Amino acid sequence: MRATVLHGTGDIRCDEVEDPKIQLPTDAIIKLSASCICGSDLWPYRGLQPMNGPMHMGHEYCGVVTEVGSAVKTVKPGQFVVGSFVISCGTCVNCLNGWPSSCVNREFMSGGQAPFARVPNADGTLVATAELPPEDLIPSLLAASDVLGTGWYAADAARVQPGSTAVVVGDGAVGLMGVLAAKQMGAAKIIAMSRHKARQELALEYGATHIVTERGDEGVAKILALTGGVGADSVLECVGTQEAMMQAINAARPGGSIGFVGVPHGVSLDGQMLFFAQKNLLGGPAPVRRYLPDFLDMILSRKINPGKVFDLEVDLPDVARGYKAMDERKAIKTLIRMG
Amino acid sequence: MRATVLHGTGDIRCDEVEDPKIQLPTDAIIKLSASCICGSDLWPYRGLQPMNGPMHMGHEYCGVVTEVGSAVKTVKPGQFVVGSFVISCGTCVNCLNGWPSSCVNREFMSGGQAPFARVPNADGTLVATAELPPEDLIPSLLAASDVLGTGWYAADAARVQPGSTAVVVGDGAVGLMGVLAAKQMGAAKIIAMSRHKARQELALEYGATHIVTERGDEGVAKILALTGGVGADSVLECVGTQEAMMQAINAARPGGSIGFVGVPHGVSLDGQMLFFAQKNLLGGPAPVRRYLPDFLDMILSRKINPGKVFDLEVDLPDVARGYKAMDERKAIKTLIRMG
Repeated sequence: MRATVLHGTGDIRCDEVEDPKIQLPTDAIIKLSASCICGSDLWPYRGLQPMNGPMHMGHEYCGVVTEVGSAVKTVKPGQFVVGSFVISCGTCVNCLNGWPSSCVNREFMSGGQAPFARVPNADGTLVATAELPPEDLIPSLLAASDVLGTGWYAADAARVQPGSTAVVVGDGAVGLMGVLAAKQMGAAKIIAMSRHKARQELALEYGATHIVTERGDEGVAKILALTGGVGADSVLECVGTQEAMMQAINAARPGGSIGFVGVPHGVSLDGQMLFFAQKNLLGGPAPVRRYLPDFLDMILSRKINPGKVFDLEVDLPDVARGYKAMDERKAIKTLIRMG
Repeated sequence: MRATVLHGTGDIRCDEVEDPKIQLPTDAIIKLSASCICGSDLWPYRGLQPMNGPMHMGHEYCGVVTEVGSAVKTVKPGQFVVGSFVISCGTCVNCLNGWPSSCVNREFMSGGQAPFARVPNADGTLVATAELPPEDLIPSLLAASDVLGTGWYAADAARVQPGSTAVVVGDGAVGLMGVLAAKQMGAAKIIAMSRHKARQELALEYGATHIVTERGDEGVAKILALTGGVGADSVLECVGTQEAMMQAINAARPGGSIGFVGVPHGVSLDGQMLFFAQKNLLGGPAPVRRYLPDFLDMILSRKINPGKVFDLEVDLPDVARGYKAMDERKAIKTLIRMG
């Protein structure tokens, strides 16, 4: 089959590779209904993350099971499934505590930008729908695999409550999903920090009540002006840079919470600054598997439409165009059609 | 009057100073029943904190009101009061949110190691008892001013729950109060990290179920062995060094919480480490004023005995001996008698 392989900075190709096979009794093979490009795929694409040889890209996926290993019990061939970008066993103490993204047997999904993919620990990772979903819901179901879950976790970690005020730092796909999540959790005031018209519009559609275009200290000053001078109850940090993290910390009120989901690159936090800030901090890879059953309910009942975050579709052989558009911020998020 | 003044590293004296006076209509003057030396007083005493001239020491206090400014409404001369080490207005949005320790008009108490002290913003800072308390409860009431509140906040920020497991890093007075707090909050397993016999004994008396004498990686390994291999639900960091902070982070389970109350000195945290740790982090000066009414109830009803943390008493003229004993870890905490 042909699959997406990153060979070096900016060098993304659709290469001929071997079809995935069952390697362990706990594996499943799925035929992907669609795949997509993640903001985090841009770190190695931009040369900002070390690579050990060519990388098989793609960790967001949904599709139909074609084969399962002998030990797999909860999914079977023919079922439509969505899985987390974090492979989890479902049985360790961290999984049982609700933290599958810190599973003691954790692996990160790879090779998902391809027609077929191998999913290890299928029982602990995949959730099947009762029947095959309508075609138009595929983008939203695909979003549940990572981007929706990551934005949701940002809001969850930032402890968004009914009636509270939430600030979203970052207007990428994750930030927009954070807006959607804050709205679903009942935030009364949702302030999206964005200077891009198309993203502002989608943020407003997803539930943002205010847009702040300023960044850094100016952005923080605007947030303080909108939040009684002390900052927001909840701040969702969806970027991963030092500037974004400090913006997030400074935009929260004392006793407020910051959920940070942008993988930090070059971020360092001074202990005494954190101490006197007196704000809750929680980050990490999203525990998507914990959220998935609720996500499927909300998507299948058309209560939420996270799939709208995809504003570009490319066919798999044309995947390089999708990366380029996201790298240049011409697309929010690219869906890859398997054809 | 004579009061405690730090002139430089290790140079603590009982000097003749002016009596405190009402300076603002919101001030109160109190005659201290007792005062004490805080672990944080040792930072400047040891030369580890910059000083701008001689420092009037002491921020833990309780006593009888002798005079109030014209605007003070909630306390009056003759009443016994306990106040927070953080002066707070009680009316700003942070105070109303339950975060008096981040009051927008915040000041830190000083000059409390003396027979009389001026307390600014008396209405927002002091809590009066219904009647004069029995003499033997003075040490516990004094502890409520900071050390009990700080240990309590460590447990609160670390989200100790009934039935959970809590680890306490640091066997100073604050750590011991953290043990007391975790016990009151219902922790089923309380692991005190200590290598000092007297402190271990007091930790056990306050409710510790396990003592771990190892530190650093060895200490963390012991904690993991006691907590199903993944770490504790809650960790109370009561030291403030890089080693203690990393020990605390590594001793918590994913999804668990670290409450850090040792003022960080030279602590720096890597963003990506924090991200993948996936643990809640909350620190800061304790919101003692929020807790004070409950503390007074628990102390006056003799439900808790935080005053037992004082294992040395000195008369005010002899205050230097109290500092020396704490600096050399020969005393856990020194009470200063006003005579």
